[in-house]
Amino acid sequence: MTTLVGVDLGGTNIRAAVATGTRSHAQPAHAPTPGDEGPEAVVAAIAKCVSEATGGVQPDGVAIGIPGPLDPVRGIVYAAPHLRGWESFDAASALQERIGCRIAVHNDANLAGYAEWIAGAGRGTTDFLFLTASTGIGGALILDGQLYAGRSGTAGEVGHVPLAPEYPPCGQGHQGCLEGTASGTGIARSARRAVQGGEATSLSRLPLDHIDGRSVEEAARAGDEVALRVFTDAGRHLGRAIGGLINLFSPEVIAVGGGLINAGELLFAPLRGGVGEIAFAVPAENCRIVQAELGTDAGLVGASAWAVKNFGQPS
Amino acid sequence: MTTLVGVDLGGTNIRAAVATGTRSHAQPAHAPTPGDEGPEAVVAAIAKCVSEATGGVQPDGVAIGIPGPLDPVRGIVYAAPHLRGWESFDAASALQERIGCRIAVHNDANLAGYAEWIAGAGRGTTDFLFLTASTGIGGALILDGQLYAGRSGTAGEVGHVPLAPEYPPCGQGHQGCLEGTASGTGIARSARRAVQGGEATSLSRLPLDHIDGRSVEEAARAGDEVALRVFTDAGRHLGRAIGGLINLFSPEVIAVGGGLINAGELLFAPLRGGVGEIAFAVPAENCRIVQAELGTDAGLVGASAWAVKNFGQPS
Repeated sequence: MTTLVGVDLGGTNIRAAVATGTRSHAQPAHAPTPGDEGPEAVVAAIAKCVSEATGGVQPDGVAIGIPGPLDPVRGIVYAAPHLRGWESFDAASALQERIGCRIAVHNDANLAGYAEWIAGAGRGTTDFLFLTASTGIGGALILDGQLYAGRSGTAGEVGHVPLAPEYPPCGQGHQGCLEGTASGTGIARSARRAVQGGEATSLSRLPLDHIDGRSVEEAARAGDEVALRVFTDAGRHLGRAIGGLINLFSPEVIAVGGGLINAGELLFAPLRGGVGEIAFAVPAENCRIVQAELGTDAGLVGASAWAVKNFGQPS
Repeated sequence: MTTLVGVDLGGTNIRAAVATGTRSHAQPAHAPTPGDEGPEAVVAAIAKCVSEATGGVQPDGVAIGIPGPLDPVRGIVYAAPHLRGWESFDAASALQERIGCRIAVHNDANLAGYAEWIAGAGRGTTDFLFLTASTGIGGALILDGQLYAGRSGTAGEVGHVPLAPEYPPCGQGHQGCLEGTASGTGIARSARRAVQGGEATSLSRLPLDHIDGRSVEEAARAGDEVALRVFTDAGRHLGRAIGGLINLFSPEVIAVGGGLINAGELLFAPLRGGVGEIAFAVPAENCRIVQAELGTDAGLVGASAWAVKNFGQPS
């Protein structure tokens, strides 16, 4: 009997679940992430959560999605913005020592994309791109039927491609990158600027620091023209970027996930327009752009499936 | 004895050479491309050139680089801007019938990138990107040790990624894509605008339609400030785009080829600055950005190597 576990490590919560097949998992255990207490405390909390998930059975392999860039081959996390002390942290070794089984680590967005490929919107394809747009923009590349990580393990950063240097920076300081304009954070910034510039918008009723992607979406839905313009602009840039990805990769499917897709056609109508401005006809005709299917479960499905991929079938 | 031939089909000239190893070829035969006379005339000219290259020996396999988007699996060219009548043209079948041996076709920029990978600047790597900047901007992706073509066969269009919609269009009508700004054509357009806008530049001595990437480069070298600004801007955008590719792919090496690289540090100094604006530190530290090594021979080296890859070792 092989017991494999997938873990979704977030900045706020840990979730762990036993894999029950190549793309399914049992009811997850969960616990808060003690991110401020340093790596050892987080590793201990993960081990406890894994043990709860297996009912105390020693697992044979655990795969973990981690919110930061990392090297999946060496198991080393380069940095994790929401976890104190994870710079150049050998997560695989620390977890292996604590849990006592083989460990695979990967970036959380990469595993969410892997989940969409194996069990969601990209199922059955060979070349699949995943893009998740919420406060930031991340993604994953499935190329020739493999999760592509590149030389340093960090590939798939679809949000950090350049637009114009005159455009706002992202949270990581890249002046004029896609995330600075088309993420929830970028949308909120544009809306705040409009308010500060004295434009007529219902958003000016909110305290400035309460304006976020969600409130802009709601105002746009209610017909606020400034909010609509900001949302349309973000959708267009996201679509243009997706058009560029179509030219670069010619994938079969691109799935878009993350909180922003709750805006539906508010986002997707300008997005499709943006794709058409940039994508060549042939690869565009051969590519479907769809909404991601797994929502917030993607991370756990992906980690569980990654455990199966790395350590064999569960039984 | 296996005789394999590589053919570089350009808009102006055909070159054909017998492969003498996995990455070498004999002295090429060449002929003008009768591009205006339709596909049959070009196919006949290719067959004649191949026969000259082999000294009349029947080849066992021929690989051909074609200047347009195509499907290398089905052997069908979607379009070739410099060849009349090549829309949806089944080039592989037509050539197979005329030459009487197995045929492999691929896009010319893809084969040039393949050449740089197998015999040039990317030799020995697993993940390698090739970018060629001259009148247009093209490229190729070598991922996990394979030339990546994607679903429709057209992957690798690194020049057709979006910047800002306010920026100029490329020759294919994509408003604000990289090629519109950072190609030789884009550089020439920016310089002409400066002249038309009455800026003080030595380029205003030239007839407007004589201003091209080369003349802007020469003016910049001579210290013309407008030309320098235009070149610096193009190099910066090219570098920012390369920074985006580093974030997307985390390749080991990115080789930049094409006529623009003759500008040397005029191009590469702002290019490196642009990379630094966008690339994450870890994948940037793991990626070398170098000049391509094979120059105009890349197409023929790539076609010859592609014949070997598809049809076995020459003997």
